[in-house]
Amino acid sequence: MSHSGAGNVPIGRAEGPCQMDRPRRKVKIEKAFGEGKIVTAVLDHEDLVRKLAQPDDSEVASLDAWWRANNYLTIGQIYLQGNPLLREPLRNEHIKPRLLGHWGTSPGLSFIYAHVSRLIKTTGQQAIYLAGPGHGGPALVAAGYLEGTYSEVYPNVGLDEAGMLRLFRQFSSPGGIPSHVSVTTPGSIHEGGELGYVLVHAFGAVMDNPDLLSIAVVGDGEAETGPLEGSWKGISFINPEHDGAVLPILHLNGAKIAGPTVLSRKDPEEVRKLLEGHGYEIIEVGGDDVPGMHYRFAAALAEAWGKIRAIQTAARSGQWDGTRPQWPLIVLRTPKGWTGPEKIDGITVTGTWRSHQVPLSGVKGNSDHLTELENWLRSYRPEELFDATGAPVELVRALAPEGDLRMSASPHANGGLLTRDLDLPDFRGYAVEVKRPAQGRAESTRRLGEFMRDIYTRNPDRFRLFCPDETNSNRLGAVFEVSDRAFMETVTGEDVKISRSGRVMEVLSEHNCHGWLEGYNLTGRHGMFATYEAFAMVSASQTIQHGKWLQEASHLPWRAKVPSLNILLTSTAWRNDHNGFSHQGPGLIQNVLTQRGDVARVYLPPDANTLLSVADHCFRSRSYINLIVIDKQPQLQWLDMDQAIEHCTKGAGIWEWAGTDDGSSDPDIVLACAGDVVTMETVAAARILMEKLPQLKVRVVNVVDLMTLPRPKDHPHGMSETMFRELFTDHVDVVFSFHGYPGAIHQLVHGRPDADRFRVRGFIEQGTTTTPFDMTVRNRASRYHLVMDAINNAKRLPSGASELKAWCEAQLARHETYVVEHLEDMPEVRDWSLEDWAER
Amino acid sequence: MSHSGAGNVPIGRAEGPCQMDRPRRKVKIEKAFGEGKIVTAVLDHEDLVRKLAQPDDSEVASLDAWWRANNYLTIGQIYLQGNPLLREPLRNEHIKPRLLGHWGTSPGLSFIYAHVSRLIKTTGQQAIYLAGPGHGGPALVAAGYLEGTYSEVYPNVGLDEAGMLRLFRQFSSPGGIPSHVSVTTPGSIHEGGELGYVLVHAFGAVMDNPDLLSIAVVGDGEAETGPLEGSWKGISFINPEHDGAVLPILHLNGAKIAGPTVLSRKDPEEVRKLLEGHGYEIIEVGGDDVPGMHYRFAAALAEAWGKIRAIQTAARSGQWDGTRPQWPLIVLRTPKGWTGPEKIDGITVTGTWRSHQVPLSGVKGNSDHLTELENWLRSYRPEELFDATGAPVELVRALAPEGDLRMSASPHANGGLLTRDLDLPDFRGYAVEVKRPAQGRAESTRRLGEFMRDIYTRNPDRFRLFCPDETNSNRLGAVFEVSDRAFMETVTGEDVKISRSGRVMEVLSEHNCHGWLEGYNLTGRHGMFATYEAFAMVSASQTIQHGKWLQEASHLPWRAKVPSLNILLTSTAWRNDHNGFSHQGPGLIQNVLTQRGDVARVYLPPDANTLLSVADHCFRSRSYINLIVIDKQPQLQWLDMDQAIEHCTKGAGIWEWAGTDDGSSDPDIVLACAGDVVTMETVAAARILMEKLPQLKVRVVNVVDLMTLPRPKDHPHGMSETMFRELFTDHVDVVFSFHGYPGAIHQLVHGRPDADRFRVRGFIEQGTTTTPFDMTVRNRASRYHLVMDAINNAKRLPSGASELKAWCEAQLARHETYVVEHLEDMPEVRDWSLEDWAER
Repeated sequence: MSHSGAGNVPIGRAEGPCQMDRPRRKVKIEKAFGEGKIVTAVLDHEDLVRKLAQPDDSEVASLDAWWRANNYLTIGQIYLQGNPLLREPLRNEHIKPRLLGHWGTSPGLSFIYAHVSRLIKTTGQQAIYLAGPGHGGPALVAAGYLEGTYSEVYPNVGLDEAGMLRLFRQFSSPGGIPSHVSVTTPGSIHEGGELGYVLVHAFGAVMDNPDLLSIAVVGDGEAETGPLEGSWKGISFINPEHDGAVLPILHLNGAKIAGPTVLSRKDPEEVRKLLEGHGYEIIEVGGDDVPGMHYRFAAALAEAWGKIRAIQTAARSGQWDGTRPQWPLIVLRTPKGWTGPEKIDGITVTGTWRSHQVPLSGVKGNSDHLTELENWLRSYRPEELFDATGAPVELVRALAPEGDLRMSASPHANGGLLTRDLDLPDFRGYAVEVKRPAQGRAESTRRLGEFMRDIYTRNPDRFRLFCPDETNSNRLGAVFEVSDRAFMETVTGEDVKISRSGRVMEVLSEHNCHGWLEGYNLTGRHGMFATYEAFAMVSASQTIQHGKWLQEASHLPWRAKVPSLNILLTSTAWRNDHNGFSHQGPGLIQNVLTQRGDVARVYLPPDANTLLSVADHCFRSRSYINLIVIDKQPQLQWLDMDQAIEHCTKGAGIWEWAGTDDGSSDPDIVLACAGDVVTMETVAAARILMEKLPQLKVRVVNVVDLMTLPRPKDHPHGMSETMFRELFTDHVDVVFSFHGYPGAIHQLVHGRPDADRFRVRGFIEQGTTTTPFDMTVRNRASRYHLVMDAINNAKRLPSGASELKAWCEAQLARHETYVVEHLEDMPEVRDWSLEDWAER
Repeated sequence: MSHSGAGNVPIGRAEGPCQMDRPRRKVKIEKAFGEGKIVTAVLDHEDLVRKLAQPDDSEVASLDAWWRANNYLTIGQIYLQGNPLLREPLRNEHIKPRLLGHWGTSPGLSFIYAHVSRLIKTTGQQAIYLAGPGHGGPALVAAGYLEGTYSEVYPNVGLDEAGMLRLFRQFSSPGGIPSHVSVTTPGSIHEGGELGYVLVHAFGAVMDNPDLLSIAVVGDGEAETGPLEGSWKGISFINPEHDGAVLPILHLNGAKIAGPTVLSRKDPEEVRKLLEGHGYEIIEVGGDDVPGMHYRFAAALAEAWGKIRAIQTAARSGQWDGTRPQWPLIVLRTPKGWTGPEKIDGITVTGTWRSHQVPLSGVKGNSDHLTELENWLRSYRPEELFDATGAPVELVRALAPEGDLRMSASPHANGGLLTRDLDLPDFRGYAVEVKRPAQGRAESTRRLGEFMRDIYTRNPDRFRLFCPDETNSNRLGAVFEVSDRAFMETVTGEDVKISRSGRVMEVLSEHNCHGWLEGYNLTGRHGMFATYEAFAMVSASQTIQHGKWLQEASHLPWRAKVPSLNILLTSTAWRNDHNGFSHQGPGLIQNVLTQRGDVARVYLPPDANTLLSVADHCFRSRSYINLIVIDKQPQLQWLDMDQAIEHCTKGAGIWEWAGTDDGSSDPDIVLACAGDVVTMETVAAARILMEKLPQLKVRVVNVVDLMTLPRPKDHPHGMSETMFRELFTDHVDVVFSFHGYPGAIHQLVHGRPDADRFRVRGFIEQGTTTTPFDMTVRNRASRYHLVMDAINNAKRLPSGASELKAWCEAQLARHETYVVEHLEDMPEVRDWSLEDWAER
């Protein structure tokens, strides 16, 4: 057995994608499981499980040493700015001025980490570690440090005394690292600050990743959140043939910040029922005695791993009956702050919420506390754990697996290294034929569905669509020609396109869909989250947190770029009058706008061909949040494919055919638009002006890429000052019809020449019982308002303008009456097109 | 027994709050339960349960007639625009042009409604009905119509043929009502469009509402969402002594939009375990046979109600052992689309997802479908249900309870009618003493905690604080002097301030906290949701949807105004450098800004006294979303209480003492600020300028009420053009330091004179490893940047400006070096105050 695991297989700064050394791993596992020799394999497997379940003395010594070393380093990070190895008595000046960090959850996290490391080393299992209680950051940082990975990616934090001091000082410090398991933590794909997503990330990571085991530690605080409770059901969608496995470890340490947790105080029988109800087989282990807990947890982990491998082996050798496996789940009960000071100033700390953050506070200047801290640190016997240089001794290092098998070094957790480009068909092959603008209607997203159907076919192991039960509703159903919905629960004869082999992910939970895709992306695979526009706000905080992750990752050279998170919003506000206000909310745009230009992209393609062009671009991109907004209903088509590509490449452009602006001089008014329905209204308004007030020079500008609007210094897509003037002039009023809330455009054009001249008409919250606004969901006759707006703001008015305004008022009144009587828009609005349009 | 229930007790257009007729109700219930006669009561109770469990023939006839009438009206709403009573054969022109609505869930919802109505009528129980599957709108609208309430609040929709036709035509139509159970639906406090919140609303409604029973129907689609799964645990916080009860009815009809649901396809044994694991006692009932289902469901409901009353009676008579009761939960299995056409065009519809929306489509012009629709409608025998005028016959009306006991007329569901003002102590009594600005630091939120402590004391039945385990962390812990955290699970001797009698609500779930408060508010009680700023985004969609609700309600004269939803954000972005990016996100402001002025309020008090003034205002207000943002750490105090009140009343003002602007002419630069930390940086920057460049005329403006910035036409709080010019001039550059994302200010000042001159410095997303921005969380020395900004943008520059800029650069470099070495800000930044300040 080689003990050189730590430090000799660099994962950092890789040039281009690297492939995991799959054959090697496979050989390793095959030693145990043997290809085509199922019976032998099961025997081997049982032997292995038995060995795992019973660690020998040297293994326990190594486990315990590693764990002590981790705990020591954890406490060091929280408290010390000097004297890292306690070579001298602890003094005030060794203590940080501000004590930050979370001790309570850390010893549990490192205890589990140690045991999983032994599992990996024994079996060759590929595994990643997701720490739900992300504020146990120091424990995971210490783990990466002990495995050598930390020094590989941050060479200034070496495996010696100076490096250890840097490790301590950087923690929770200005210019250093955050207190959470985060992007900066090697081996992490999960930031545990906003609680609730550890299982969704873990499940996403193992989809189409058959060799991977996600160890997902669920804190009992986190277990109280809605998203976490809603994510246990991941196993109802995981196929043991082509997916890997998640091993959830529910860590009940009893308390959160300031009190007990619900699950830790329920009757354990209820907890068991709850988790069995979710479909798991429960393995319980608990206590605080050492080494007893090492033996018991090793046995529990062995049992869990044995079950997982048995399920997978059976499924992959054709011995699965197709029912949903009862995957194992470990319930681990250890005291919060385990191994820390039991009482402080006479008050019980360990096992209570008081150990949540910094249990021994006010150390500087309190000699009792200083002594107590020193005793606590020395209780781990650092002199046995680190050598004279400060490097971990062989006994500690012996626990770590080698190279990429170290969880802190797993390429799965730096998924850009494993990312392979999608094999994309030519998106132009799905084009809607458009001979002239606005002559025919089509469901734009249907073409995207066909595009994705063929992406599924060409990329059977690295592309998935995630959608809350709306794939068909969103007109993306073509994907069902080649794949079913994934479902591991009972399927009946009445069901359609749903099976255990399906790879289209439908679950009525935006949290699950979004989080699964994040896990899938961060482990190097591609996908799309398609959802109703209004309900994208349900998972908006995930969008924002993922954007922060990507942005932070962009500063770390060792983090390879991952596939972008693509979000398609359909069933938009403008077509949800019948569903009422709950279905009307273009708010996600507002939130993506707060992200930095490094990551945020917002596209509003007005028709099928622009949608295809945008989608192709998004599927090829890396490490962005790509937000695409377009409705699913039949809609007018504007551009043929060549025009669409050109338009999308520029991001915004003048639609000359729609206006009366001959380019010879500035127009009298600019009618701009971004978004499908508002584009129709804008072109219709321009058409009315063309017909009824032809002397007015109207320019129509359409914006596909919203991020062309800000200045280049504010966003990399921001169009140049010159182009901005070419489109919008620098003094002509712009009536800007926007899909979302008007404030979005106000903030985007801030700083552009005379930004005040932008009169934005957008979605405004309204009661369904009133329609006092100029552009409303309930009233699709907004074109008449836009005509009046144009007249009210034009630089120069030809005669006939006031008559046209009066006509518009009359049309609006007619429409209002008509819809109440006929329950639909009046025909000239409903069926409007440019059928009669001919090239001028 | 009187059958005049429908229509004779108007709930609409009430002047001022009305009190529920509690004594009457009490007498009614006491007849069954008798005060002080526990043994007798239990016997009475058992008799009543037995009677409930065994409906006689006439009761079943009435139940079934009401249900048929409801189903008939439901289908009518989806399909018909004429011939409402089928007085003539159905023809194409009777069919709506666009068929919208959701049939699938509706018959189940009305079936339950009918049975609960019988329960109410038999027992006098006060109950409200929350339809998780909110898209079953037509069923709930029909229920209100059959109970007469609908015609009371919408007199044009009368109980006759013409009214019925209006009922049909308005549904999902322009100018009509949405297809969901919504604000317009009498009896609703729950809009079921965004799924997941039915239980949180139900639990919030019964807190401190001992006589109320919330019937909460959970759809099996909704049951897949995270927020719903996370809300079963509500019973761990409900006290049977002083709270009412929630009866969840998990309605497993098998399918969602396009496929089966997880819970409907799991082994029923697993479902049972899951719900038992959550702590409930499960009552299962299912089938599709009629009248069999009437008998079985009546028995199930009787059993459930019996258990609830037994739990409450025991608890309220001192016979409760204090352990968490096992509250009943009904699992109801009926086919989706029950009683609808079983097959259409040879394909099975009932019991599958195909019945989700409009099962019979393309009716117009398809004579087979038209016939099928007519047969379907006639299968309910409308001629037996409605009389010659179109009014429901006595058999149907007999089911409805009387007056306020009708669920559609319950004042609990129009909570403004029951709202009583808070008994508020004088907030000035909690003031921090401020002799001069910025001399001392205080934890501002601590004073708010003391204010709320006394609000708790004075309002023991109508005020609660909701907070995800952060009450102490947020410095609001004074409330624990008078109340504990509510907790029904095991409490141990180590626990502090947590008990079953507690009324401070802590659960690590923003969804639960927010939703409980919504339910509490909408039933007429007051409260506050206090949470970490970054994690407010977790429940942002709830904030938005509640805002939409309030906005819509403001258009309905019969909806009385309810207490405002008060949200306090603490632990803000600016003080979370150590926690990393996940804890830094001022994004909720951005989202509240999208709401209309009718409902949205955003306050950024810079210190304790302004916070108290703002909070007092919020607690008195009605039907707003009040967002208050302030950090919890010790911070400089600026204004004494009188100044604070004056400043908050104006919403924004010049801080003359902070600048060098003598008011005689326009300043050279305006330094504006909104938010606590940025106010400190702004005043510090102004101080540096005052000392080092005294000839520069600097004006300092502080904004507390963010909504004073937009124009009055955009928000009712928008300051007048005159006041805006008085504060900001109309041409001098403004360096605006903002707590949140800069884009928020850009959009708010859009349209103000020369808005481009606003140079906004706000929170910008950043990696923790880089600090290239002018205002950053990691670098609290922003004052030096602001000084440079002021110099760069001032109208007029005195000599010495370039030297000052150089000095600022040097200070920033020093600071950068200092924090890396000392792990904290340099003393002149860390300890900065205006100790030496004297009135000029």
